[in-house]
Amino acid sequence: MVRSGRYTRLNVYLLILSVLQLNLHTVEGVWPLPQAFTSSTERYPLNPQAFYFGYGRQSAAQQGCSVLDSAFRRYFSLIFPDYTDGRLHFSQYKPFTVEVSIDHDDCEGYPNEDSSERYNLSVSAGQASLKAETVWGALRGLETFSQLVYQNDFAYYRTLLMLNFPRFQFRGILLDTSRHYLPVQAILKTLDAMAYSKFNVFHWHIVDDPSFPYQSSSFPDLSSKGAFHPMTHIYTQSDVRRVISHARLWGIRVLPEFDSPGHTTSWGKGQPGLLTPCYNGGTPSGTFGPVNPALPSTYQFMARLFKEVSSVFPDSYIHLGGDEVDFSCWKSNPDVRAFMQKMGFGSDFTKLEAFYMENIVNITSALNKTSIVWQDVFDYHERRSSLSVVEVWREGCYLCEVRRVAKAGLRVILASPWYLDLPGPTHNWARYYTVWPLAFKGTEEQKKLVIGGEVCMWGEYVDATNLSPRLWPRASAAAERLWSDEKQTSNVDKAFPRLQDFRCKLLRRGIQAEPLYVGHCKHEYQGV
Amino acid sequence: MVRSGRYTRLNVYLLILSVLQLNLHTVEGVWPLPQAFTSSTERYPLNPQAFYFGYGRQSAAQQGCSVLDSAFRRYFSLIFPDYTDGRLHFSQYKPFTVEVSIDHDDCEGYPNEDSSERYNLSVSAGQASLKAETVWGALRGLETFSQLVYQNDFAYYRTLLMLNFPRFQFRGILLDTSRHYLPVQAILKTLDAMAYSKFNVFHWHIVDDPSFPYQSSSFPDLSSKGAFHPMTHIYTQSDVRRVISHARLWGIRVLPEFDSPGHTTSWGKGQPGLLTPCYNGGTPSGTFGPVNPALPSTYQFMARLFKEVSSVFPDSYIHLGGDEVDFSCWKSNPDVRAFMQKMGFGSDFTKLEAFYMENIVNITSALNKTSIVWQDVFDYHERRSSLSVVEVWREGCYLCEVRRVAKAGLRVILASPWYLDLPGPTHNWARYYTVWPLAFKGTEEQKKLVIGGEVCMWGEYVDATNLSPRLWPRASAAAERLWSDEKQTSNVDKAFPRLQDFRCKLLRRGIQAEPLYVGHCKHEYQGV
Repeated sequence: MVRSGRYTRLNVYLLILSVLQLNLHTVEGVWPLPQAFTSSTERYPLNPQAFYFGYGRQSAAQQGCSVLDSAFRRYFSLIFPDYTDGRLHFSQYKPFTVEVSIDHDDCEGYPNEDSSERYNLSVSAGQASLKAETVWGALRGLETFSQLVYQNDFAYYRTLLMLNFPRFQFRGILLDTSRHYLPVQAILKTLDAMAYSKFNVFHWHIVDDPSFPYQSSSFPDLSSKGAFHPMTHIYTQSDVRRVISHARLWGIRVLPEFDSPGHTTSWGKGQPGLLTPCYNGGTPSGTFGPVNPALPSTYQFMARLFKEVSSVFPDSYIHLGGDEVDFSCWKSNPDVRAFMQKMGFGSDFTKLEAFYMENIVNITSALNKTSIVWQDVFDYHERRSSLSVVEVWREGCYLCEVRRVAKAGLRVILASPWYLDLPGPTHNWARYYTVWPLAFKGTEEQKKLVIGGEVCMWGEYVDATNLSPRLWPRASAAAERLWSDEKQTSNVDKAFPRLQDFRCKLLRRGIQAEPLYVGHCKHEYQGV
Repeated sequence: MVRSGRYTRLNVYLLILSVLQLNLHTVEGVWPLPQAFTSSTERYPLNPQAFYFGYGRQSAAQQGCSVLDSAFRRYFSLIFPDYTDGRLHFSQYKPFTVEVSIDHDDCEGYPNEDSSERYNLSVSAGQASLKAETVWGALRGLETFSQLVYQNDFAYYRTLLMLNFPRFQFRGILLDTSRHYLPVQAILKTLDAMAYSKFNVFHWHIVDDPSFPYQSSSFPDLSSKGAFHPMTHIYTQSDVRRVISHARLWGIRVLPEFDSPGHTTSWGKGQPGLLTPCYNGGTPSGTFGPVNPALPSTYQFMARLFKEVSSVFPDSYIHLGGDEVDFSCWKSNPDVRAFMQKMGFGSDFTKLEAFYMENIVNITSALNKTSIVWQDVFDYHERRSSLSVVEVWREGCYLCEVRRVAKAGLRVILASPWYLDLPGPTHNWARYYTVWPLAFKGTEEQKKLVIGGEVCMWGEYVDATNLSPRLWPRASAAAERLWSDEKQTSNVDKAFPRLQDFRCKLLRRGIQAEPLYVGHCKHEYQGV
């Protein structure tokens, strides 16, 4: 947390706001709820023919800033969805300008773990002023502004003062493109919708047992033999770049997961010798288990693969998986057993797993990547200090696990309560809303180690046909939990009409967000 | 059942088929499973540039038959989805003709309860012969043919002999356009998908408590005041005609439901005096209950409304609802209590309800309509003989209720096991497949009274955003139960790969059918 103390100007501003009388629940339709704001009740019309985005004179970013220039274009369309040049004529118009000022010019960079997303927004007659430390904060502010003025047929604004920043730095959505292939379009559309709820991490669970759609330049056989189809069901390097570039313009990090040593069946097809041959009695059974941890060639392969992956994905984080390793195949294999003997692991296969994971972690550390692992690795690992970030995913007392990880001094991402792919009452969004990630006994320092949470959309029963309605608006419930102040957003009944309103906004933006209950939106989803 | 004995030619044909060795599960991809067929294993290519539909010389229907002419156009596109005139060139081509012959010219009529859907299909080298009693049977045969030859990039056919007919005459899907408004496009798309699974009844639960989207010409206030929005969330007369006409071309009946006396909150807005004023102590509370059964004006209104509805919807069936009537408001109202007294109903409000329903049934009988009611009406009704068709919807021992209704000599439609809107494990299609509608103790005559079943898609949590993936392919599981022979389709494991294959066909046809499990389709859904 290197940010503390640097932005005292904003903190003073927060203080001023907190002594003003806040009418937090009267401003409809900003989701997730901003941290602090006050606004007028009057509304003033906005005219698309006299509406401008611009850069403040003092701003470190100026015209030519790719992130903001393209955001201005996008948000103009989002604010005025019906506008087509020349069709609307207003006899009288007062110009309105949104002036954006940025402290640091990070226009051509990528959002990262330390990127500030703070901004303050002040809207007065004829003008809005949006100030942020980074372009990523400005993107969040533009989203908020678009939600504030977005009033169906005609656009209105209110005057207001707002200070906003996320409660958690890491607010992710996992998509699984191995159990079902998701066309690139479906991923891009999900990124759009993520930005509307201020999610900032796309965790791309790109490969797994069923298929290997990532087209590796170093190991092209992985996808040509391991994908569902070598031409139509793969992500080329250009597809991946397109996803990363699209995500960047929304201020979203793309965090790839190459899960091993388990969940790797599809890898074996294009990389003979990588997986452990399972034995039946004294002979190979013809089936394969997890990655073979006993062979030097495994680590040579992994080093080359992760070197490629590290250069393709610019984010400083990488997810190494490590979950659900089945030891039975390792146990059956005489070479693996001999390796255990040699390494002095006895018959404790968790030691073998830890050995493997430590090697993979070291490979990625050498590539300057921070690794995330699933909680299994933390649970089995003896030398936990080599780990960095642990993602908690198991059911049960997940906060107990969060506490254990934080006590060990490691960073935590919470996923357990947000498995949105799971069958269940689909309308029960409140279940994803009433999650309290810090409700465990621990010091302030330990709680700061909880860097955020993640919505997981596993692919067993999900593909492009049902991805959007299954994600939205339920994932938005999690988004508010991860962005907003917990005290201001603990009441489900107060959140319900706001979420209904937000869901209508999603529809208006073409996101196939399913209904929360009986009712209607002014603009229903038409895209059938 | 007036059909018996009239089509001995088909029955003889069935006999011949049944002594041939049937390879029922080798012909992939016809869903629901045809009753009887035999086919070659060889496949022959089909060339779109030399493929023709035509009418048999002896056919009662000839060119100009609206149902078949338009079906030929549609099925050409479904069989050759990639075909664009002039782009594909085949150096050698053998012409292939599908010759359709119909016994009765019902080309300009509507499908109805007695419409035969039988057909026989024989495919030999260069030619298919499709014979049916009616155009509706021919439509089913064209669907089957399209599924047989439909083989991804290139079309192939096998030679075969087939006799097919539905197990149940009534195979319906209910859509609820009151709890959420469904744009007409979403309804039309659902009709398309219904035809692919050989559903033949669209039960349009058009109005209910939350909204009254049907724009009545006699009572325009019903929708202008009772719809979610008087302009954007209504079905105009022209919309309704469009739905009926689209359904007709697929051989689908449109069966409107105007549910009363309960489920009518939205009616009250545009028809003051229709609903019962509820009392609190001795004074009206300002709220309203079910339709007021004590006023003559109620029956005058209903007679006029149903007269209109009967002329707008050509089907001979009409659904009158009658479910879930809450008696508390009636009980609170002194005028209703006085009416009870006068009629000698004592304090038995089921008698009042039965009185009301009998009046409504009589109104629609006078309009030559066969009425369907929900099981509640049967349960409360003393003079059951005035009823015609009862729809069983409650959970629990639904076959007990089916049996009771059949024992009373009334026709039954089964809906209980097919509430597909209900939250639950969405992938559990087998639950909708393993339903045995005739597994109750009863005579053959009683079992014949079970005329079919219906998939219900209630609207609390469903609108155009999630309708398709929630319906398909799970509704197709019910479709096979309602069309196919039970003995041949009792095995879930055998059905699974066929349903997976069929689901890919639905995707290819643009239907957003959700995945059954891990895997892929050659053509994934792209429409995001």
